[in-house]
Amino acid sequence: MSDIKMIEGGVCAAKGFTANGVHCGVRKSRTKRDLALILSDRDAAAAAVYTTNLVKGAPLTVTKKHLENGVARAVICNSGNANTCNANGIEIAETTCAALGEKLGISPDDVVVASTGVIGEPMSAEPIIGGMDGLIAGLGDHNEYAAEAIMTTDTKIKSVAVSFEIGGVECKMGGISKGSGMIHPNMATMLVFITTDCAVSSEMLGRALKSDVSETFNMISIDGDTSTNDMVTVLANGAAGNKLIDSDGGDFDTFMKALNTVTVALCRMIAADGEGATKLLECSVTGAKDLQTAKTVAKSVVCSSLTKAAMFGADANWGRVLCAIGYSGADVDVTKIGVSFESKAGEIEVCRNGSGVPFSEELAKAILSEDEILIKVSLMDGEFSSTAWGCDLTYDYVRINGDYRT
Amino acid sequence: MSDIKMIEGGVCAAKGFTANGVHCGVRKSRTKRDLALILSDRDAAAAAVYTTNLVKGAPLTVTKKHLENGVARAVICNSGNANTCNANGIEIAETTCAALGEKLGISPDDVVVASTGVIGEPMSAEPIIGGMDGLIAGLGDHNEYAAEAIMTTDTKIKSVAVSFEIGGVECKMGGISKGSGMIHPNMATMLVFITTDCAVSSEMLGRALKSDVSETFNMISIDGDTSTNDMVTVLANGAAGNKLIDSDGGDFDTFMKALNTVTVALCRMIAADGEGATKLLECSVTGAKDLQTAKTVAKSVVCSSLTKAAMFGADANWGRVLCAIGYSGADVDVTKIGVSFESKAGEIEVCRNGSGVPFSEELAKAILSEDEILIKVSLMDGEFSSTAWGCDLTYDYVRINGDYRT
Repeated sequence: MSDIKMIEGGVCAAKGFTANGVHCGVRKSRTKRDLALILSDRDAAAAAVYTTNLVKGAPLTVTKKHLENGVARAVICNSGNANTCNANGIEIAETTCAALGEKLGISPDDVVVASTGVIGEPMSAEPIIGGMDGLIAGLGDHNEYAAEAIMTTDTKIKSVAVSFEIGGVECKMGGISKGSGMIHPNMATMLVFITTDCAVSSEMLGRALKSDVSETFNMISIDGDTSTNDMVTVLANGAAGNKLIDSDGGDFDTFMKALNTVTVALCRMIAADGEGATKLLECSVTGAKDLQTAKTVAKSVVCSSLTKAAMFGADANWGRVLCAIGYSGADVDVTKIGVSFESKAGEIEVCRNGSGVPFSEELAKAILSEDEILIKVSLMDGEFSSTAWGCDLTYDYVRINGDYRT
Repeated sequence: MSDIKMIEGGVCAAKGFTANGVHCGVRKSRTKRDLALILSDRDAAAAAVYTTNLVKGAPLTVTKKHLENGVARAVICNSGNANTCNANGIEIAETTCAALGEKLGISPDDVVVASTGVIGEPMSAEPIIGGMDGLIAGLGDHNEYAAEAIMTTDTKIKSVAVSFEIGGVECKMGGISKGSGMIHPNMATMLVFITTDCAVSSEMLGRALKSDVSETFNMISIDGDTSTNDMVTVLANGAAGNKLIDSDGGDFDTFMKALNTVTVALCRMIAADGEGATKLLECSVTGAKDLQTAKTVAKSVVCSSLTKAAMFGADANWGRVLCAIGYSGADVDVTKIGVSFESKAGEIEVCRNGSGVPFSEELAKAILSEDEILIKVSLMDGEFSSTAWGCDLTYDYVRINGDYRT
């Protein structure tokens, strides 16, 4: 399997992709771009996964229909309004795709549309359509503009790209994402757009994405609230010229590894930039009797408000980790559990066989004062492992989400 | 069915029950009592429900064994240490029961033992046993002392009592509880001790408690973290002299109604005094197609961090309520959902048929600025209803739980 190398360029790294972001006016404040476009110069195999929330943003419904044939050319995304719980939401999303299709000379069915922002606020397609000419005119190597335009209360853009080889041909893949937070806080919508010039069939692309997401984006939790607008899409336009990946094998494995490198990097960025977060929490579970047990335990730990608040306070309160494992619903033997905390400052064991072990509070405090904390849980019950990502629970999370909408 | 009247006296209201609370030294600070005792002057039918957390406090294991025969005489409970994840936890709990049994001249098997506080801290039975003589000597009409002794970071004691009639005989029932919070924050253990002089068989008492808890205490959420030490117990000593309730019928219905009055009052007190809480949130769901749907939706709303933070900020951000319904897992038709907010300041409709309706932001702000908020959700899909209780998410929740343990 070929090496995966980190490179620059985000969603514009792969051949044949350009991007841009402008301020069109969905957000009244002109301090930030609010409309992003990613374009492939040729048809791309496309796949997406969507929120499981029964309340779904209108753009998701429209995108799902457009991706039925597994092909797309463009992604358009606004921030500032989620276009959700609006009576005319579908119409707005379809009008947007139709206008973009006409201006780009592509089929509206080849447009992926997404929105993030306040739910249930009246919305109009007018600013989006009004902004399209400038958006298209400025298309180029503008990954940063697109990454900024999809942000809400994110404090930094989230972008990554890698290169890898398929059959001796260099391929590239890049992604941008927005994490949790909004200027008008409403819900922590997660949006991820990935592009690659690797030639891969829609079917294999869909399989790769679905399989990867269950181990990556579905293992992030900022606050346990599943947004109505979450969506992850990947467009693969084949511009690299590799032999098409249309079945299992070494090439597909390499592609999966590249995809996983991109998605894990974005997961870590999203979790670290969770609303109000000061720390990235990573929980690695080993020794589980099956994969689901490992995942359930890892996610329960990073979701626990008490654990998250303890990490904010640099408090080695491992009882909260045990507690979160205990109520996770996973079938574990609590008398076997071991827990350690690790960061750049070192590693410390705090619990063995389900009971506390003496440890230096001073070292624990130093370890938990770093901005990336690894919580290591050993279940000593099998061979399976999993990782989940989250962030600490801080005053600022409450401030951001307690602020009045207007 | 007889009327249920609110009376004074808490767990000492019912005939034959005395209580006390002292400082014994499990908590080093002498600012608060830390050991509570409730005694019945005769054998009482007893029932309990316990946390579903796989990590269970040692006292729960011991109490469960003691209540196998459905009979108890006394309840002893310390705060300051949860006696959980300690290698010698069972021994400490059993030693405590043995010592108390000897001093009171009752069987150790008739003692209910409970603990709340930090997990995994080394503990000794010594201060508890040392405090017993004073605890027993001071037994009397001291409901407040007992209620204080089981508190951790609770800001007020939680006590309620009612009187009701069974077959023309006046019976009384009272309860105390502790809610979420600890001086050494660790987990939001909920403990509830209920006493009644009503004559009721162990079997019917167990049925009543189990049925009631599923509608009351299991419908509270402070932070989604299920403690290792949660426990609700009820002792019924028959001192009132009513005809024994040993089957279904009008008397059992009255008993259930009295029990429900006590438990709902305690639920509201626990939720309103959640860690850092400034507001009691009550979510009432009506029009559900079945009971489980109503319960799932109500609980998802009061558990949503985003909804809780919005309520703290008096923000009528109903999209968060819709979102929490959508990811609850309940099978609902989102296009039918209606949402209103209500408090002493009035009521306001914010969502109908799953979409927003125009409303006065000023009135909404006034309604949500009160300290008891009712979130009314209509599913328009059937006849079932349910209520859940919670509290807002505040800076103080983070402060309390981010503080270092020592």
